[in-house]
Amino acid sequence: MRPLRQLGELALLDWIRKRAGGEKGAGGKNLLVGIGDDAAAFRLTPGKAALATSDMMVEGVHFDTRYYTPYQLGFKIVSVNASDIYAMGGVPRLALFTLAAPPETETGFIKKIFEGVLAALGLYGARLAGGDLSASHSGLVLDMTVIGEADGVIKRSGARVGDGVFVTGPLGDSACGLALLKEMAEPVAVEKGASARDKLKRLSRKWRSSLQWETVKPLVVRHLMPVAKRPPGRVLTAMLDISDGLLLDVSRLCKESGVGVRIYEDKIPVSGPMRRAAETLGLDPLALAKTGGEDYELLYTAPQGQKRKNMGKNKGGILIGEVIPAGRYMVDAAGKMKRFKAQGYEHFGK
Amino acid sequence: MRPLRQLGELALLDWIRKRAGGEKGAGGKNLLVGIGDDAAAFRLTPGKAALATSDMMVEGVHFDTRYYTPYQLGFKIVSVNASDIYAMGGVPRLALFTLAAPPETETGFIKKIFEGVLAALGLYGARLAGGDLSASHSGLVLDMTVIGEADGVIKRSGARVGDGVFVTGPLGDSACGLALLKEMAEPVAVEKGASARDKLKRLSRKWRSSLQWETVKPLVVRHLMPVAKRPPGRVLTAMLDISDGLLLDVSRLCKESGVGVRIYEDKIPVSGPMRRAAETLGLDPLALAKTGGEDYELLYTAPQGQKRKNMGKNKGGILIGEVIPAGRYMVDAAGKMKRFKAQGYEHFGK
Repeated sequence: MRPLRQLGELALLDWIRKRAGGEKGAGGKNLLVGIGDDAAAFRLTPGKAALATSDMMVEGVHFDTRYYTPYQLGFKIVSVNASDIYAMGGVPRLALFTLAAPPETETGFIKKIFEGVLAALGLYGARLAGGDLSASHSGLVLDMTVIGEADGVIKRSGARVGDGVFVTGPLGDSACGLALLKEMAEPVAVEKGASARDKLKRLSRKWRSSLQWETVKPLVVRHLMPVAKRPPGRVLTAMLDISDGLLLDVSRLCKESGVGVRIYEDKIPVSGPMRRAAETLGLDPLALAKTGGEDYELLYTAPQGQKRKNMGKNKGGILIGEVIPAGRYMVDAAGKMKRFKAQGYEHFGK
Repeated sequence: MRPLRQLGELALLDWIRKRAGGEKGAGGKNLLVGIGDDAAAFRLTPGKAALATSDMMVEGVHFDTRYYTPYQLGFKIVSVNASDIYAMGGVPRLALFTLAAPPETETGFIKKIFEGVLAALGLYGARLAGGDLSASHSGLVLDMTVIGEADGVIKRSGARVGDGVFVTGPLGDSACGLALLKEMAEPVAVEKGASARDKLKRLSRKWRSSLQWETVKPLVVRHLMPVAKRPPGRVLTAMLDISDGLLLDVSRLCKESGVGVRIYEDKIPVSGPMRRAAETLGLDPLALAKTGGEDYELLYTAPQGQKRKNMGKNKGGILIGEVIPAGRYMVDAAGKMKRFKAQGYEHFGK
């Protein structure tokens, strides 16, 4: 029940530093200087390419603390960044975490954010090495930089005509999870497993017959605590992670590679729980799968070769279409082909 | 006169990408993938240590757009981070810049921030390699990560008893510049040299006899567009940059090194303009020099050897005191020694 103002920055920093484990421990052997100096100092593996990515989460824009626990926020911002590192064909190594919070924020809330950050970094084998703490006037701002390394970098620009287009898993779960959370309008402590079922009761009253905890859980978990996907161990020509929706992100890949794409609507993977929940809420599952953001599945292109006849699961990837010389087309179940536009999340609301 | 909402994120990103120069041009030869992919990819010099630091600037907390032009904001956030890299004994190589702005912000304002960022990065020989753009609800949030490299890392923890304590230049200029800006209450376009003198008129009316543009300019420039200092080319035992005030930052160095310090009040460098302006404003120049933040001078310790007798300028550094086994003391002009506490900027207002 102690606000940040009372604990102070230096005491919070000491707590974080102790938790982060300094230069010792797993993953820390190449960390020369961790939290507490002007900058983190580290060594990367000789010969490998270094990778660096940043993603920001702003309260009221990217998240609402009515839906998220602080632990989930910390976990998610790491996953979002780790996903970008995996999407380049790399592995995360260390992280800088910057947090701005109103001085009246409870210290316990802030510490739980850091616990989520550290848990997720542990999952990806990376270390917290630095960052910045600041006051804010209204709302939380989280910004994370993750540094990784890769043997070979996989860009968005390498797709070639004839390549297959693959995704690593079902799409739209996160967008559907968010729709469910908006109905519930309170945090679901999925990471503890505890009272979540009780919180679901209010939601269930409305859709008693169709929505079970087993249906809802994977969707809200996907939204609250997404886990970054590792790319399959095969030759890929281009890759990115789906953060702003399939149609927008596949358009980015096409633009960077200077190619077109044909996607088969009935190949877009939709999970059973998502289909059930979306239909209960009166939403179109396929629309969620096409334009819903924050799934953090990987979208990649790879030579099809002999795998072409075997549409479907492909070494961890699901074939959803193919690279063509130009134009972006969606083929519906009846075989009808239609152009599509880059639709998805635009950060300034255009 | 076009708001961000209307231009859109993708168009802004294209503009930034073109300006940043991609993987070509000076400093870009080791940049494998710049802006526009999931993460930046780059190569650092084999055998060198990598460095990474982040600093955030929040509107209303770290800056007020009544005093700053957008160009100055962009310039300053780079300098703040470059200063941390120099303070580790390294040089900046590349940067990730994250910006959150209300969707109604004018595009021209945002572009000027980026111009300031790119100008400062050019000054330090580093490249803009990535980042994130986001909407915010109220006010600007700037977060910068700078990645650098160093032959040998200089930590805060290496100070040894008997070392001299040095600073690279006068202290308190920035705090005094801020006090002047608060009186003027409008941005001073020092980077263009133009109408600044006119804007000073209102200030001058109040202190017509004592404050000239020549006095005020270096102080407001130091606050608005600080330039990060490079450390002197000699053996240093510990270093940090003075961002939160001498007394607080020297205390951090002492804590990390497990030592004490004796500072000679009359050795603390105070610039002529700062002394004149502070006295005109009714402020204590020495208090500004001891506790004023954001000077971004370097504070370092180094063996004194034969230099000890030569108090004063020392290869770019000014000797202000010495490392002792324990305790933090200030010696005044009369030779009287007093303990001091870590006073300076506390981000959560404790």
